[in-house]
Amino acid sequence: MESRTKLFSDPVHGFIAAPRGLVLALIESPEVQRLRRIRQLGVGHLVFPGAEHTRFGHALGAMALMQEALATICDKGTPISPDEHRAALLAALLHDIGHGPFSHTLEKELIAGFRHEQMSRHLLAALNARFGGALDRTIAMYDGVYERPFFHELISSQLDMDRLDYLRRDSFFTGVVEGRVGVERIIKTMRVHPEQGGPEARLVIESKGVYAAENFIIARRLMYWQVYLHKTVLSGDHLLHATLRRVRRHFAEGRAALVEGCSPPLRFFLERTLHARDAADPEVMQAYTALDDADVLFSLKQWRHSADRVLADLADRFINRRFFRVTFLDEEPTADDMARWREQVGRWLESAGLGAAADADDYLRRDRSRHAAYELDEQSIRILDRQGAVRDITEVLDASSRAALSCFVVKPYVCYPKEAPLFPEDGPPGGDLPGAV
Amino acid sequence: MESRTKLFSDPVHGFIAAPRGLVLALIESPEVQRLRRIRQLGVGHLVFPGAEHTRFGHALGAMALMQEALATICDKGTPISPDEHRAALLAALLHDIGHGPFSHTLEKELIAGFRHEQMSRHLLAALNARFGGALDRTIAMYDGVYERPFFHELISSQLDMDRLDYLRRDSFFTGVVEGRVGVERIIKTMRVHPEQGGPEARLVIESKGVYAAENFIIARRLMYWQVYLHKTVLSGDHLLHATLRRVRRHFAEGRAALVEGCSPPLRFFLERTLHARDAADPEVMQAYTALDDADVLFSLKQWRHSADRVLADLADRFINRRFFRVTFLDEEPTADDMARWREQVGRWLESAGLGAAADADDYLRRDRSRHAAYELDEQSIRILDRQGAVRDITEVLDASSRAALSCFVVKPYVCYPKEAPLFPEDGPPGGDLPGAV
Amino acid sequence: MESRTKLFSDPVHGFIAAPRGLVLALIESPEVQRLRRIRQLGVGHLVFPGAEHTRFGHALGAMALMQEALATICDKGTPISPDEHRAALLAALLHDIGHGPFSHTLEKELIAGFRHEQMSRHLLAALNARFGGALDRTIAMYDGVYERPFFHELISSQLDMDRLDYLRRDSFFTGVVEGRVGVERIIKTMRVHPEQGGPEARLVIESKGVYAAENFIIARRLMYWQVYLHKTVLSGDHLLHATLRRVRRHFAEGRAALVEGCSPPLRFFLERTLHARDAADPEVMQAYTALDDADVLFSLKQWRHSADRVLADLADRFINRRFFRVTFLDEEPTADDMARWREQVGRWLESAGLGAAADADDYLRRDRSRHAAYELDEQSIRILDRQGAVRDITEVLDASSRAALSCFVVKPYVCYPKEAPLFPEDGPPGGDLPGAV
Amino acid sequence: MESRTKLFSDPVHGFIAAPRGLVLALIESPEVQRLRRIRQLGVGHLVFPGAEHTRFGHALGAMALMQEALATICDKGTPISPDEHRAALLAALLHDIGHGPFSHTLEKELIAGFRHEQMSRHLLAALNARFGGALDRTIAMYDGVYERPFFHELISSQLDMDRLDYLRRDSFFTGVVEGRVGVERIIKTMRVHPEQGGPEARLVIESKGVYAAENFIIARRLMYWQVYLHKTVLSGDHLLHATLRRVRRHFAEGRAALVEGCSPPLRFFLERTLHARDAADPEVMQAYTALDDADVLFSLKQWRHSADRVLADLADRFINRRFFRVTFLDEEPTADDMARWREQVGRWLESAGLGAAADADDYLRRDRSRHAAYELDEQSIRILDRQGAVRDITEVLDASSRAALSCFVVKPYVCYPKEAPLFPEDGPPGGDLPGAV
Repeated sequence: MESRTKLFSDPVHGFIAAPRGLVLALIESPEVQRLRRIRQLGVGHLVFPGAEHTRFGHALGAMALMQEALATICDKGTPISPDEHRAALLAALLHDIGHGPFSHTLEKELIAGFRHEQMSRHLLAALNARFGGALDRTIAMYDGVYERPFFHELISSQLDMDRLDYLRRDSFFTGVVEGRVGVERIIKTMRVHPEQGGPEARLVIESKGVYAAENFIIARRLMYWQVYLHKTVLSGDHLLHATLRRVRRHFAEGRAALVEGCSPPLRFFLERTLHARDAADPEVMQAYTALDDADVLFSLKQWRHSADRVLADLADRFINRRFFRVTFLDEEPTADDMARWREQVGRWLESAGLGAAADADDYLRRDRSRHAAYELDEQSIRILDRQGAVRDITEVLDASSRAALSCFVVKPYVCYPKEAPLFPEDGPPGGDLPGAV
Repeated sequence: MESRTKLFSDPVHGFIAAPRGLVLALIESPEVQRLRRIRQLGVGHLVFPGAEHTRFGHALGAMALMQEALATICDKGTPISPDEHRAALLAALLHDIGHGPFSHTLEKELIAGFRHEQMSRHLLAALNARFGGALDRTIAMYDGVYERPFFHELISSQLDMDRLDYLRRDSFFTGVVEGRVGVERIIKTMRVHPEQGGPEARLVIESKGVYAAENFIIARRLMYWQVYLHKTVLSGDHLLHATLRRVRRHFAEGRAALVEGCSPPLRFFLERTLHARDAADPEVMQAYTALDDADVLFSLKQWRHSADRVLADLADRFINRRFFRVTFLDEEPTADDMARWREQVGRWLESAGLGAAADADDYLRRDRSRHAAYELDEQSIRILDRQGAVRDITEVLDASSRAALSCFVVKPYVCYPKEAPLFPEDGPPGGDLPGAV
Repeated sequence: MESRTKLFSDPVHGFIAAPRGLVLALIESPEVQRLRRIRQLGVGHLVFPGAEHTRFGHALGAMALMQEALATICDKGTPISPDEHRAALLAALLHDIGHGPFSHTLEKELIAGFRHEQMSRHLLAALNARFGGALDRTIAMYDGVYERPFFHELISSQLDMDRLDYLRRDSFFTGVVEGRVGVERIIKTMRVHPEQGGPEARLVIESKGVYAAENFIIARRLMYWQVYLHKTVLSGDHLLHATLRRVRRHFAEGRAALVEGCSPPLRFFLERTLHARDAADPEVMQAYTALDDADVLFSLKQWRHSADRVLADLADRFINRRFFRVTFLDEEPTADDMARWREQVGRWLESAGLGAAADADDYLRRDRSRHAAYELDEQSIRILDRQGAVRDITEVLDASSRAALSCFVVKPYVCYPKEAPLFPEDGPPGGDLPGAV
Repeated sequence: MESRTKLFSDPVHGFIAAPRGLVLALIESPEVQRLRRIRQLGVGHLVFPGAEHTRFGHALGAMALMQEALATICDKGTPISPDEHRAALLAALLHDIGHGPFSHTLEKELIAGFRHEQMSRHLLAALNARFGGALDRTIAMYDGVYERPFFHELISSQLDMDRLDYLRRDSFFTGVVEGRVGVERIIKTMRVHPEQGGPEARLVIESKGVYAAENFIIARRLMYWQVYLHKTVLSGDHLLHATLRRVRRHFAEGRAALVEGCSPPLRFFLERTLHARDAADPEVMQAYTALDDADVLFSLKQWRHSADRVLADLADRFINRRFFRVTFLDEEPTADDMARWREQVGRWLESAGLGAAADADDYLRRDRSRHAAYELDEQSIRILDRQGAVRDITEVLDASSRAALSCFVVKPYVCYPKEAPLFPEDGPPGGDLPGAV
C-alpha cells in the first residue's frame, strides 16, 4: 500500500512529495535533519515573530520547486532522464547543507574567511563517499561541470530554486507581503533553449514571464531592505558577533573560567583560530555538524551569569532582546567621529559600572549594508522573445526598470547602546520595543 | 513622531498594534520574551516542518484578537473602560506565560501533577508585585472574579481568544487547511447580552454566526486528530518522556556521571521530585523561568554521548528523528499483550546490544488519545437567536451536528521501536520517513 | 516558440495549462465560451458581492484538478494512455456545458421536468458530431460505460472534480472560509485500487486522506446552509421564478404586449411549453445555447416598464434587489396557514395599488430546503486502509462523524414581501439591506 | 437584536461592516445597485477568467479601507467627528457612481469628450437633492473644498482608498500576484501632520511605510502592463469601439434596420451625438443610469444576426472572443505603413466576402498605450521622516527607485485581424486561444 513518495505538509507550497529511496534516505540523514535546528533568517525571528522557520523547510521547498521546474522544462520538449531528475532534486535539497548556526550570521566568527558554501561542498563529498558515489552527478551539477549546464543554472543563478524558495518562504513567514513573488508564474515560463551560435542549451524565461521576473528582482530588493538588512537584524547580528569575539578573547588569553557553560562544539571553534582551508579537516567537519542554534542559545544563557560583567550584559541583551540602536548615516563616519563616539560609549560603560572605557569596542560598531537588486556581473537572466531571440532582461525592460535594477546601494551605519545616545534625535534610553517592526 | 502603538508584523493576523506603556513593558519583560524560546506545538515541528512557531507569537495573536473582540462588543453598545480594555489585552497576552519547554509536552515530567496554568497564575502574581499592582484587574478577569463576567469568557471559554488564535495559527503554520477557521466571522458576531432571569451580561454569538461556530468546533476536532494527536507527535512525546525519566532515575540513584552535560535549570527539576504545591516556591519559579526548549535540546545532544547506551540511543533518536512506531488498537491491550510485547522489545534490545530486557519499559508504552469536540461539561457556547432568546449551541444545531459534537472519542495505542515489530502489518524496520505527514 | 500548452491565470488554482489541439479547440468553441456568461451561483452574487464568477472558470478548474488527479494516479502505478488523458480532461471541461442562465435557478422554468445534465449530454453528442467522433471516449467516460470505471468516478461521484472545484471556488469567491477545502490533499491521497473479489480497479482514498475527505463532506454541508441555501438566495430564486411564470402566463393568454422587450431566445422558451423529451430537438438546442444571463437581465430591465404593475414590480425588485423575506418554520405550514397568509399578502397588494388579491400567488411561496451531507444512496467514498482493505468512509469514521454525515435535513420555509409582515418578529418593512450576509 | 451595522462578506477584505441609516440607504439606492452590473475591468474578464468582479464590490471595498484609514488617523491623535466619519465613508462608497458599462472602456464612445468623474459628480448632486442635503459634506470632501483637506486626499490622491482597493482587488481576482499590495501596512502608517509653514494638516506616510508605498507604486505599474494594458484587453476594447462606431454610423445615416435589437438606453446614446456638457441633462442622466453591461452584451448578441455582415462579424467576434491581434511597435507607424496595412486588411475583407476595402477602418487600429508609475505632476506622496520633516517620496527613495518611478513609458501598437497577418512573425491565423494570458 506504500506509495512511491512520502508527503510533507508545507504551509508555503502545500504538499511536497519526496521520492522514496535515495532522496528520502538523504532527508533522513543527520546532516539534513540538523537543518531543522538552524533558523533560516538568523536573528530575523527576533524582529518578525513568525519567522522561526528553519533551513530544513527551505531545503524541502527548493526541492519541490525543482520538481516543478523540471516538469515544465520536460513538458516543453527537453528530455530529462530519471537519473538527472533525481540528481537535480538532491542538488536542490542539499545546496545549503553547510550552513552553521543562525545561518549566515556567524560563519565568519567561527572560521576566518569562511563561507558556508565551502562546507556544503565538503559535506556533499562526505555524503557521496558514504552513499557509494550516488551523488556524483549531483556534485557535477552543483560544481557547474555537468554536461548540460542548465541544471547548474537551476541550482545556482539569479533565478535558481534557492532564491525562488527563500524569497517566497521568507515573505510568508515574516508577513512582509511586498516580498510575495509569483514563483509559479516564473517557473511556468522557464524553458531550455539552444544558445545562439553555440551548441549549448541554456535556461531562458519566455517573454510572457518578463514582468514576473522583474517583479522578482524588485521583491528581492524590498526584502533586503525590509527584512535581511532590517536595522534590528543588523543590531542583533552585531550583538552576537561582539559576544562571540569577547568569548574568543577570553579563551585565547586563558580566562576560560569566565566563559563557563560554553557548549562543547561551540567551544571547539572559539578556543582555536581556524581558516577556510581547515574546513575540510574531519575533526572540524565533525564539530561543525554538531553545532546548531541550540548550542549558541544555551551558551548565551549560561554566560549571563559570567563574572565578566560585560559578557554577562551582552549575553543578557541578546536573550532578553535589549538590542543596540542602529543609525544610518549619510556618509561614512570619520576617524574623529568614531573616536568621539567611542569615548561617549566608554564613559557610559564606566558610569553604569559595567566595564572599562576599553570595552567600548564591544558596544560600538560601524559597518555598511549594501545591496544590488540585479547582479550585473553574475549570470544574467535571459529572456526569450517572441521572435526567438535571447536577450538579457536589462535589455528587455523599459528604461525606468533598467535604471532601478542596475543600481548598487550602500548605506553606512553605526550601532551603539540606547543608553549611550550619540545623536540629538535619539530619544531617551529604554523607549524602544523588543520585537517591533 | 512616535505613535501610540508599536506594530508587529504577524503572518497570521497581519499587523498587530501593541499599545505603548504597560502593555509594551510587559511584552518586553523577560517572562514574555522567554515565550520566544518555547515552541507552540511541542514536538509538532518534527512532523510539520513549518510549525516552528512559538508561544510568543500566539500571545501577541491572542492579544490582537482580544482587541477585535472588544471593538465589536463596544460597537454593539456595551461600554468598555480604558482600564478594562488594557486589563483584557494583558490577560490575553499573559494567559500562557507559565508554559514550560515544548509547551504541554513536559509539564508533568518536571513537576508531578502540575499544569502550566498554575505557573501562569503564580507568574501573574509575581509580575503584579513587580509592576505595583497594575495587574490587579487582569488577575481578577483571569480568575473569573471580575464584576463583569464576560471578560473571563473572552479569556477562558470554548470560544476564547486563546483557542481562536491557536487554531488559526496552528492551521497556518502546519499547512493543515482543514483547521482553517473563520475567526473574523466568529468575533464579528459576538456581543454581550443580559442573562435571562439575571442581572449579568454574558458573551453570546448572534445566530448568523452559528455555522462559523459549528465549523470552529469541527475544525478543532480535525486539528486534534490531524495535528495535536498525530501519531508521530504522540511518538515524539513518548520519546522525550522516556528520556527524561531515565535521566531522573540516574540522578535519583546517584549516577550523575551518566547524564553529564545536562543544562542547569533542567537538572534542577530532574534531580529532585517536585509537586504542584511547590510551584509557587521562588527557587522553583526561578528555575522554571530559566528553562526553555534550548535547554532540552542542548541536553539531549550531550546525552547522545552518554556511557549509558540506552540513554544515548533515546537521545539520538530524538535528535535525528528516529521515532518509535505508534499503532492504534481497537481495544485496550490486556496485561498479557503488554507482557508479550515487553518481552519482544526486550529481546530486540539485547540482540541489538543496546540494553537489558529490563530496559524495555523505556521503549514500550501504552496510552490512549482522547478528544471531545465540544466539552459538554465546560462553559457552553451560547447562541442569541433572532427572537432574542439565548440557547446552547447544541440546541440550535440540527440533529446530525449535535450528534457529532457531543461524542467523546478514545483511541488506545501502543508505541514501540520500529526495529521490534509487534504486528504483522508492521513493515520491515527502517522504512519510515522522518518529517513526513 | 509556442509551447504545447496555453496558460490561464486562475485566482483559485494559479496557472491552468490547457493543451493545444483538441482541448484548446473546445475551449474556443461557442458552447464553452457561452459559459462565460452564466454565473456559477445563480443569484448568489446578490448576496456575496464577490461571487460573480462563471461556469467558464469552473469548467477550467475542474479540468485543472483532473490533470492533478491523473498525475497522482499515474504516479502511483496506474498507467493512463494519452488518449485517455485527453478524454478525461475533456469530460471535466465539458461536464457543465448544458447549464442555462443563472445555472440551476431557471432550468425547470424553461423546460418542464428538465435537468441541465440532459442538455449537457445532448450538446456533447452535437460537439462529437462536429468534431468527427473525437469525443467518443469522453462520452463513454461521462456515461459510465468506459471500460475503466474509475474515469467515470473522477467525473461523477461524491469526490469528483466537479465538486472539488466548485466547493473550493465558491468558498474563494464568496469569502465563506468555512467552505475552504484541502482539495490538494484529497487528490494527493487518491489512487486506483483493484476491487475486492472483482477484476475492476476503482478509485479509493488512502487512509491518510480520511480527515480531508471528512472535512470535505462537512464543508459541503456548511456551504449548503451558508451559501447555496442562504435565505436571500432562496428569496432571489423565488423572485425570478415568480416573474418568469407571470410572463409565461401573459404569453399563454395572448398578452404579449405586457411583456415587450423580452429577449428572443428567452421568449422562445416562455411562449411555449417544452418538456425534457424536447431538449434534443435542434431548434430547442439552438435557442438554449443562445440564452445566457444577459438575456434574463435585459428582459427584467425592460419589464420594469410593463403596463402590468405586478410584473413591473417583480422585475424592479430583482434589479434593485428588493427581495422578499424568507422565514424558516419549525414544521410545514397547514392549508389554513397558507390561506391566511395569502389573504394578508393580497390585502397588502390591493392597498398598495399594485395588484389584485389574486396576484398574491406571485408574492407568496412555501417551499423547503433540504440537504444531506453524504449521499448514502449515491456512490460511496471508499477508503483504503493501511492493511489494504477498502471500506466505506462511514465505516472508518468514529461514531460522532458517522452520525453527522448520514443525517438528512429538511427546513420548510415561507417567502413573502417585507411590506406584508406575517410574523410578530418581522420588523417594520424596509429595514433590511440589499447585499448583506 | 439588530446590530448597528450590516455585514458584507467580501473575499478581499473579509467582513465589511456598513453602518445602518444613511450609508445603508445609499447602498440600497438604484444608483449603487446598478454598479453590480458593471464589470470592474471592462473586458478584462475575457483575459482573466476570474475577473468578473464589479464596481459594486469595489465601492464597498473603498468604503472599508476608508474605515480603516480613519481609525488609524484617529488613533494617532487627529479627532474625526461622527459627521465627518460618515461623510468620508460615503465619499469612498460613491466615488465611482458615474461609471458606465464596462467601466472605462466605453465612456468616450457614448458621450464625446466625457469622463465618468463628471457623471459621478452630477449623480452625487442628484442624490444629495433626493436625500435632503445629507451629502453636502461628502460633496465638499469630494470637490476638495472641505475645510480639512486630508479628507480629499483620502478620496483622491496617489494613495487614495480607490487606488488601494482596486489594486488589491484586481490582483486578487485576476490571480496576478505581482499586483499584491500591502494595503494594510500602508494604511497603518498613515497619519495627519501639520504642513510646514502653514496651518493645514495633510496626509503623510510615516517613514516605516516607505517601502510599502514604493512597492505600491511598482505594483501599480506591473498591473498596468500585465492587466490594464494587456494586449488582449486593448484588442477587446478596440473591438467594442469599432462595433459601436459602426452602429452609430448606421443610426446617423438612417440604417436603423441594420442594428435592430439595440437595447433602448444604449440606442439613446448611439442615435445622437452628445458632449460632456450634456451629461447633467436629466434625460441623459436617466438614460445613463439605465445602462449597464447587460445592455451592451444583449445588443451585441442581437447584432450577430444583422444584415450588415461586417457588424455581424464584429459582434460575433466579441461574443465568441475571436479577438484581433495586437502587435507592439518600436516606433510610431508612418502614414505609409498604415496605408499599406489598410490595403492588406481590405483585401482580406473582400476575399473573405465580409465587406468592402473601405470597411478596413473598422478592423485596423493604431494607438499607443502609456503609463507612468508615479504621476510627478499629481499630488505627491509625502513621507514623514523620523526627524519630523515631510518630503516627497521621490526624495526619500534611493537613486535607482527614483529613476524607475519618474519614467513615462509609451508603446505604440497596431491592432488587426489574425486572418490578415501584417508581420512575418505573425503565425498562421486561428492559432490563438481565447481566454489565455
